[in-house]
Amino acid sequence: MTEMKSWVSSANGDTDFPIQNLPYGVFDDGRGARMGVAIGAMILDLGAVDHGLDPALLAEPAWNRVMEAGPQVWAQLRARLTELLSDEGHRAAVEPHLVAQSKSRMLMPFRVAEYTDFYAGKHHATNVGTMFRGAENALPANWLSVPIGYNGRASSVVVSGTPVTRPWGQVKGPDEDLPRFSPSQRFDIELEFGAIVGQPSQGMVSVAQADEMIFGYVLLNDWSARDIQAWEYVPLGPFQAKATATTISPWIVTRAALEPFRVGTPERERPLLPYLREPRPMNYQIDLEVALRPKSGAEYVISRSDTAYLYYSAAQQLAHHTTSGCAMRVGDLLGSGTISGADKDSRGSLLELSWGGKEPLELPDGQTRSFVEDGDTLTLRGAAKGDGYRIGFGDCAGQVLPAVELPDWAQE
Amino acid sequence: MTEMKSWVSSANGDTDFPIQNLPYGVFDDGRGARMGVAIGAMILDLGAVDHGLDPALLAEPAWNRVMEAGPQVWAQLRARLTELLSDEGHRAAVEPHLVAQSKSRMLMPFRVAEYTDFYAGKHHATNVGTMFRGAENALPANWLSVPIGYNGRASSVVVSGTPVTRPWGQVKGPDEDLPRFSPSQRFDIELEFGAIVGQPSQGMVSVAQADEMIFGYVLLNDWSARDIQAWEYVPLGPFQAKATATTISPWIVTRAALEPFRVGTPERERPLLPYLREPRPMNYQIDLEVALRPKSGAEYVISRSDTAYLYYSAAQQLAHHTTSGCAMRVGDLLGSGTISGADKDSRGSLLELSWGGKEPLELPDGQTRSFVEDGDTLTLRGAAKGDGYRIGFGDCAGQVLPAVELPDWAQE
Repeated sequence: MTEMKSWVSSANGDTDFPIQNLPYGVFDDGRGARMGVAIGAMILDLGAVDHGLDPALLAEPAWNRVMEAGPQVWAQLRARLTELLSDEGHRAAVEPHLVAQSKSRMLMPFRVAEYTDFYAGKHHATNVGTMFRGAENALPANWLSVPIGYNGRASSVVVSGTPVTRPWGQVKGPDEDLPRFSPSQRFDIELEFGAIVGQPSQGMVSVAQADEMIFGYVLLNDWSARDIQAWEYVPLGPFQAKATATTISPWIVTRAALEPFRVGTPERERPLLPYLREPRPMNYQIDLEVALRPKSGAEYVISRSDTAYLYYSAAQQLAHHTTSGCAMRVGDLLGSGTISGADKDSRGSLLELSWGGKEPLELPDGQTRSFVEDGDTLTLRGAAKGDGYRIGFGDCAGQVLPAVELPDWAQE
Repeated sequence: MTEMKSWVSSANGDTDFPIQNLPYGVFDDGRGARMGVAIGAMILDLGAVDHGLDPALLAEPAWNRVMEAGPQVWAQLRARLTELLSDEGHRAAVEPHLVAQSKSRMLMPFRVAEYTDFYAGKHHATNVGTMFRGAENALPANWLSVPIGYNGRASSVVVSGTPVTRPWGQVKGPDEDLPRFSPSQRFDIELEFGAIVGQPSQGMVSVAQADEMIFGYVLLNDWSARDIQAWEYVPLGPFQAKATATTISPWIVTRAALEPFRVGTPERERPLLPYLREPRPMNYQIDLEVALRPKSGAEYVISRSDTAYLYYSAAQQLAHHTTSGCAMRVGDLLGSGTISGADKDSRGSLLELSWGGKEPLELPDGQTRSFVEDGDTLTLRGAAKGDGYRIGFGDCAGQVLPAVELPDWAQE
């Protein structure tokens, strides 16, 4: 694999998208939304080349139909794309259908059926628990046994580049008697890894079956209003605090491309129930980073983490999701939970990086950050590092805009 | 209105479906799934009559496209149906397209975009809180200010008549050190009222706007595994405990049909923030009942309640849902939360009726029930009582089947 090259020269250098990656997206270069494959600095316009798929699978600009077609079609397409983009013999036919990424806008790569967000970062759960309940009760009693999750809002999922408007909501300070309606003052990010369910299920599935159902992965930023969450979340969990936006990276990196980067989940402190045990490594080693760019100023990397910190793999989470008999559908999106490492500079949220605002983060230009400020652009990046290449995800970015003006009917 | 009659004779007597109702469903009489309107004991096969709609709105057997078409089309259709079914002059053309309900199977009336479940029954929240936290801390601190809700799982929503298989899940007794994987032993129902969002929104909407977005209502049984919920729900809320099934009644009763039955929400103990205040009555007075039929034996009404007990209307809940900027979509379903009254025999769940299993319910045939047993059929019914007629919803029923056998891979 390390020696495989593409005839697309930009795919062979410093790029997220070498021939080993071939991630799937939807792009618009001014001539309409189409399905595409990233290769170096370019996008292959899939529908314009001899892709070997049933054309009905490309009838709408979204990867759901290809997912529905199943693992055999996924393998055939990947083999065909590898051939088209590595074999010089295809160059003449294919090269006219490469479009520059710099001249294209990326759109949502798939229709999100439903969105579930998990809580599988042990350092994150411990940090948050320590802040809210003290170090002795940091991890909830169920955490080492259950891949805790909650249902998020699919309508809130947006593609990288979409601006995010600071939300309004009910908040109540510890010294206040009554709640106020206010723009969130503790608006935050969460560094997560998203798994896309590519095959449906009805009834319980094993971890091995769950792994086979996963089509690919994206980076995911679960924007979170901590002040709204603190007031609303007892007893039924986060709701409006998490419904403003969830940003995903534009390229679906396939499970096949990540195969060489599998690692096991961390050693268990408590044995898992049999239905959650992994028959083989189902986690991944992927370098992650979070960058913050103030409205005016340079970008600054505020955290570096790794998907290998996750205590539960997406396959384990998906298997757990089905225990109740819950039907899973093509296009379901599963967020991993915030991925924080052990060190302070590997924390995946500003809540943790600023320790609830008590230790504001200092940026090199002298600014400080406890939470996200208007105009800030937050970007997640990630790449699995191979021998001489990397499998990257592209930027998962969003700029925060000021809260809207309060409508008349919401004023006192 | 009270004097209006239909030429369909069964619509003028003891029926949920007089000419004043005209609810919308999807039926199959053996000749395929079609959109229909209930009238007395019959179903009008909508596509076969001169309905006046753009035929594209009937292109798939689901009411989503009619909803998308907007309030003006909703009003036109209702007026046209009233004319067709009340004016003798249309009888000859329309009567051949009536199908007996007894010879039809009802299907899901619409595609559920997303499903949100609220917690607006004050007696329910108080009862549950008293059981779990004691009488002094019964209501969560936020309850009188926030229409608390959580996102449910749209893929779990099924139409009345669909069997419900008892779920497996992680449970842990108070005296156990570690959780077990077990069929739920505390499987329960929740008597709820469901609102269907018929128009989309992007950004905050007022309570008045939210009310206008609602297309209609159904009865809703939010099946709940109390033992799974008790172990999983801290800190992110219910997840697999609520993902087995949510049963809805098959007929969408329109907002227009319920207009005469509007009542205000109960008096406030704490003033609401302006964005939640109702400009006019937006709750409804609808008699509700829950019936239990053991596998062998007669049906027994175990609870009688009323939607008027709800502390927040669906319009208030929907307005709250949008505060974060959360986009709402056509086909979103909002559960009200369990509707319990003040008296013991008006409680809307077995958890409350049996007080957590401590006071099992005695059925007339000598059986007792703390929670739902295999083979039991639970049926919700509801009707708004007018002068000489009633606006009913039809049965919202489901029979509980035994848990599936544990697959090999889940065994020790």
